[in-house]
Amino acid sequence: MPAPRQPIEIREFPRPDLAPGAALLRTRRSEVCGTDVHLWHGRLSGVPYPIIPGHVSAGVLDSIHGPIAGLDGAELREGDRAVFFDVHRTCGQCRACTVHRTPTRCPSRRVYGITDSAAEGLYGGWAQHIYLEPGVGIARLPDAVSVEDYIGGGCGLLTAVHIRERAAIAPGDSVLVQGVGAVGLCAIALCRIAGASSIFAIGDPAPRLELARRMGADHALSLAGTTVSERLQMVRDLTNGEGVDVVIEAAGSARAVEEGVTLVRDGGRYVIAGHYTDVGPSSINAHHHINRKHLEIRGCWGSESRHFLEAIQILEEHGSVPWRDIGARTYPLSALNEALADAEAMRITKALVDPWAG
Amino acid sequence: MPAPRQPIEIREFPRPDLAPGAALLRTRRSEVCGTDVHLWHGRLSGVPYPIIPGHVSAGVLDSIHGPIAGLDGAELREGDRAVFFDVHRTCGQCRACTVHRTPTRCPSRRVYGITDSAAEGLYGGWAQHIYLEPGVGIARLPDAVSVEDYIGGGCGLLTAVHIRERAAIAPGDSVLVQGVGAVGLCAIALCRIAGASSIFAIGDPAPRLELARRMGADHALSLAGTTVSERLQMVRDLTNGEGVDVVIEAAGSARAVEEGVTLVRDGGRYVIAGHYTDVGPSSINAHHHINRKHLEIRGCWGSESRHFLEAIQILEEHGSVPWRDIGARTYPLSALNEALADAEAMRITKALVDPWAG
Amino acid sequence: MPAPRQPIEIREFPRPDLAPGAALLRTRRSEVCGTDVHLWHGRLSGVPYPIIPGHVSAGVLDSIHGPIAGLDGAELREGDRAVFFDVHRTCGQCRACTVHRTPTRCPSRRVYGITDSAAEGLYGGWAQHIYLEPGVGIARLPDAVSVEDYIGGGCGLLTAVHIRERAAIAPGDSVLVQGVGAVGLCAIALCRIAGASSIFAIGDPAPRLELARRMGADHALSLAGTTVSERLQMVRDLTNGEGVDVVIEAAGSARAVEEGVTLVRDGGRYVIAGHYTDVGPSSINAHHHINRKHLEIRGCWGSESRHFLEAIQILEEHGSVPWRDIGARTYPLSALNEALADAEAMRITKALVDPWAG
Amino acid sequence: MPAPRQPIEIREFPRPDLAPGAALLRTRRSEVCGTDVHLWHGRLSGVPYPIIPGHVSAGVLDSIHGPIAGLDGAELREGDRAVFFDVHRTCGQCRACTVHRTPTRCPSRRVYGITDSAAEGLYGGWAQHIYLEPGVGIARLPDAVSVEDYIGGGCGLLTAVHIRERAAIAPGDSVLVQGVGAVGLCAIALCRIAGASSIFAIGDPAPRLELARRMGADHALSLAGTTVSERLQMVRDLTNGEGVDVVIEAAGSARAVEEGVTLVRDGGRYVIAGHYTDVGPSSINAHHHINRKHLEIRGCWGSESRHFLEAIQILEEHGSVPWRDIGARTYPLSALNEALADAEAMRITKALVDPWAG
Repeated sequence: MPAPRQPIEIREFPRPDLAPGAALLRTRRSEVCGTDVHLWHGRLSGVPYPIIPGHVSAGVLDSIHGPIAGLDGAELREGDRAVFFDVHRTCGQCRACTVHRTPTRCPSRRVYGITDSAAEGLYGGWAQHIYLEPGVGIARLPDAVSVEDYIGGGCGLLTAVHIRERAAIAPGDSVLVQGVGAVGLCAIALCRIAGASSIFAIGDPAPRLELARRMGADHALSLAGTTVSERLQMVRDLTNGEGVDVVIEAAGSARAVEEGVTLVRDGGRYVIAGHYTDVGPSSINAHHHINRKHLEIRGCWGSESRHFLEAIQILEEHGSVPWRDIGARTYPLSALNEALADAEAMRITKALVDPWAG
Repeated sequence: MPAPRQPIEIREFPRPDLAPGAALLRTRRSEVCGTDVHLWHGRLSGVPYPIIPGHVSAGVLDSIHGPIAGLDGAELREGDRAVFFDVHRTCGQCRACTVHRTPTRCPSRRVYGITDSAAEGLYGGWAQHIYLEPGVGIARLPDAVSVEDYIGGGCGLLTAVHIRERAAIAPGDSVLVQGVGAVGLCAIALCRIAGASSIFAIGDPAPRLELARRMGADHALSLAGTTVSERLQMVRDLTNGEGVDVVIEAAGSARAVEEGVTLVRDGGRYVIAGHYTDVGPSSINAHHHINRKHLEIRGCWGSESRHFLEAIQILEEHGSVPWRDIGARTYPLSALNEALADAEAMRITKALVDPWAG
Repeated sequence: MPAPRQPIEIREFPRPDLAPGAALLRTRRSEVCGTDVHLWHGRLSGVPYPIIPGHVSAGVLDSIHGPIAGLDGAELREGDRAVFFDVHRTCGQCRACTVHRTPTRCPSRRVYGITDSAAEGLYGGWAQHIYLEPGVGIARLPDAVSVEDYIGGGCGLLTAVHIRERAAIAPGDSVLVQGVGAVGLCAIALCRIAGASSIFAIGDPAPRLELARRMGADHALSLAGTTVSERLQMVRDLTNGEGVDVVIEAAGSARAVEEGVTLVRDGGRYVIAGHYTDVGPSSINAHHHINRKHLEIRGCWGSESRHFLEAIQILEEHGSVPWRDIGARTYPLSALNEALADAEAMRITKALVDPWAG
Repeated sequence: MPAPRQPIEIREFPRPDLAPGAALLRTRRSEVCGTDVHLWHGRLSGVPYPIIPGHVSAGVLDSIHGPIAGLDGAELREGDRAVFFDVHRTCGQCRACTVHRTPTRCPSRRVYGITDSAAEGLYGGWAQHIYLEPGVGIARLPDAVSVEDYIGGGCGLLTAVHIRERAAIAPGDSVLVQGVGAVGLCAIALCRIAGASSIFAIGDPAPRLELARRMGADHALSLAGTTVSERLQMVRDLTNGEGVDVVIEAAGSARAVEEGVTLVRDGGRYVIAGHYTDVGPSSINAHHHINRKHLEIRGCWGSESRHFLEAIQILEEHGSVPWRDIGARTYPLSALNEALADAEAMRITKALVDPWAG
């Protein structure tokens, strides 16, 4: 991705020398997620174009300048099917890391496929190989987890694991998820796994709503096909007139935030996790929607390595969830412009990338 | 108070018969707080005018249809100096009370001086006697606590005790309090007692800022005398460039909410507790101020009886705090219109009411 | 139950007059649980024998001195299938109820079938009718929940709902449950519903271990058939060498506590919920098992009405769990001595009581 | 310290070469704490004797192979008064560090003065210089904090900061601290700073009890001069008959644990933080003291860098607390055997070490 709004170009890079503790991953699958569309539109600040996008990826360890241990402590070997935590260089020393325990706000934090320039090397998944620099958290992919399931969940699943934790979902909670993109769909599945009672989803288009139901939603409402007041009425009718215990915002719309505070019950929780870019302000009435409502609103940014490990565990233990159906179509490198266009037009939920495909 | 925007009238009521478990309190002091000004303006919905205002009051138990026990379990006696929790009839059975554990959102909840009509009897403190119906939580006022200190804190202190709990203030936290009315001033004192590090206050006029300093604020900034960007700069300069750990909103202004989300650090906490009436919407950018900030916003409504008991304990143990200076002037019943006018014009922070004064 | 260690007698009581707000329940099923065996042995202090045992029961509302509303706020009608929260008279005013928010430690708390003397009336489920005094929390039994499932879960399920909350089970947690009586079996099911990863169970005899597997346990270990060190080794082998995240004690044995602190990982949680009677002291090394382990041990006593409501919701939503199999056999009143003997000898997990059976 | 139970020897070491990112600290003060007495007795396992003891120390940066930044992000300079977090090499990658968020249980964790052999270099404070290897967390000592106050608090203060957090002390809590050594004394001061209401202390000898009062204890009870039942009676008499909200164990005695569970109220919290060595088992009745009591027991091990930073902040903001009086006497290197003997005999609470003194 040479620059915002420019077509994707295929470039050749030299095979990197591996520093001690580094490894080279032969990419099997990467993804085109919503953030990549934002990157392409230039909506994220401070991105050092040109970049190699693709933050979450899976592959096979091609070579290792070892020994290196995986996050489980066991030594990694060439030939292992492996995945890695795309967030690296979190410092562990600054006030965000230590005092505030919010490592996703560490100023040193870097993310594969987003914050690392192509000039620095193979730091992105839309490439046949990825350079895993020393210190990157690597995990073996369990035998029970296919590459397609892993990337189907992808970055959306990592984000959703953090959301589920932040939302403190407990058995019996009623939940409403705004947005049925990859994050919203994974959040639905995780709330179901955590024992949530009724799960509502709001979004479009119809195939995503259908997938939302298969991920675990009890009620999937079309955003275009219902009005704000109809949705409020439906939710109240099914929740003792109260609204849901928890709303999860994964829509990235300023209007969604304004609606979310009305759908949650008094004393409930509202996790806002879909605003990775600035889409303008929301109008909130502090009396009706926060103070009198005794509401908790919790922003949720990024993921920590424990969320990465939990995502792998979830995939291994809950293979009946149709994770792979989130990423219904796989594109070769030569079709990435088409993939971005399909994602932007919402023709697909998520595009998978196979850099070795024809 | 016969109706909104009407002058206060002095009326005679018959001495009530006491039901078993009820008591009659001879009022020593009540208060005119910000809510009373709102009541007078008709800004609260569902108020059954005419009412006898005055929700927090102190006095002497005149007669008891007993035996009745105080909240500490010991029997109350006629002649005891006593105070009572103004919130009554919380049901303890509904979903708000039991499932959600948010009793301040119980639909049966009633409040002396606000939700009870004068037609029902002496349910307010702007009267020489107050009818304490069966089930009202009564506590003896400790010897060390004067009536003036108790009412100086008054309802603002009860609200602030809940705020302090909701804000989870711990030693070393930096805190900023928006608003220096009774709630804000009490919140400052409680944060100081809880070991907060730097405490900032924003408000006006100058005498309140001076009192804010005496309550424990390290930095008291004039709202009129500084700009939004100056305040942001000052706060950042004194907090490692981060903003404060906790902002407490006790200003009741839509603009305060918009400023508050910028003054709190990433991963911090923002308690919104000043919007007891609707003053219109605030414009919040979910990307910058909630999601990316990984912020927690917590509304805080009303108080529970444990906050009432904690307030009495705080008054007893922290007598060096100038609680009484919040209520600098005492008015007889005949001067209540003047008291309301003085409170509205911010000539005083809080008016005390002595219903037996000339 | 006339007195400890005496045979159960069948007595006739007059049909009670209903106070306003009271109701009479025609009993369909009650239960003989572990506590009833303890009552029969005289191991609980302060029990006002003679009593009518049976604290959790289900039936049909026979007559109502109404109107009375159920816990969901809707009016109850004669003929409704109904259940009730066996804990009553929690005061809502004392320090345990308000300041400490531990209503299960309220001194006024009473429990049907345990703390109420037969001299006071029909306060127990081993009877054809039960007197539901004013203030008792009543709920309609959902159509989808059979009486056998409700009593199969019974008091063990209510206890387990509180345990699950206190243990803060989250998806991915590994859990070990000590004891496979009604409480342990229900705890296993609830941990599975909450998304727990590996679930271990320890207990006996074999049929209960088999039921433990059907309730959701991945590994069910015989207490008699394995040694302490074998169990420790098995658990470590399956948990990265660490021990489980959470141990739940539902065994009521002093030795179980000593073993539990070794099976939980460093920084884990240990909920002790099986010691409703005094079975003597446990020997705990504070250095190895608490301090250096950075462990949290949480006692868990009784249930609150929100646990009662959550239990009903769980039964309605998770009908595929074999709740009814916990209470495999139903006894008439005339066979209660046999039921107690069977329960004591662990020939059954729980006896159901049908007071109208021949 | 060549080996357990051997006299301390003074040895010469070569001035170390500084790796990039390392620094050399010219020691101003170190300490002899209770752990050092345990080290001398050989009670800690896995210690690589010979070692240079002294884990918490303060000094002046003598030379820096820089640039290196302090924990506040600002560059450090030679000549700065500096202190450092004695725990180093916590990996930030293992399950303890990431998944469980219990970095004090990280297997890679090392501690100056305890786990590093003298053969590796100047890794302890009983030396004229200390080698601060790359990655050690260094902080400038604020001007307002004297070296004597810093070491007076010392490791006991770091431990106590973690205890206070783990105990979740809030204003109004009643607290009892078992033990009046450096940890207990600092815990008393921190509970006072956090707004605790009544603070009880139990310990000996008389001068430490006197210091406990000056640190903030309201009631300081002699362990030898009172009986267990007298202490229980005193505590109940002053806490509504309930026991205290929080007990903090900083005594390191198996009997203290047995007493602590009786002194805490139902539903209270008991933090066990004094068992850094194995002093044998405690006998705990799970029914009376955990289950029925609905108690929380929380082990507390070590400190994290946020506790180190909070300790410095506390010292800066609360200069009126007599921190320095904990370390009443300063010894030269040549008198370290005497210092250990004095500490063991409890003639002093803590010995300070001045390695440059005659």
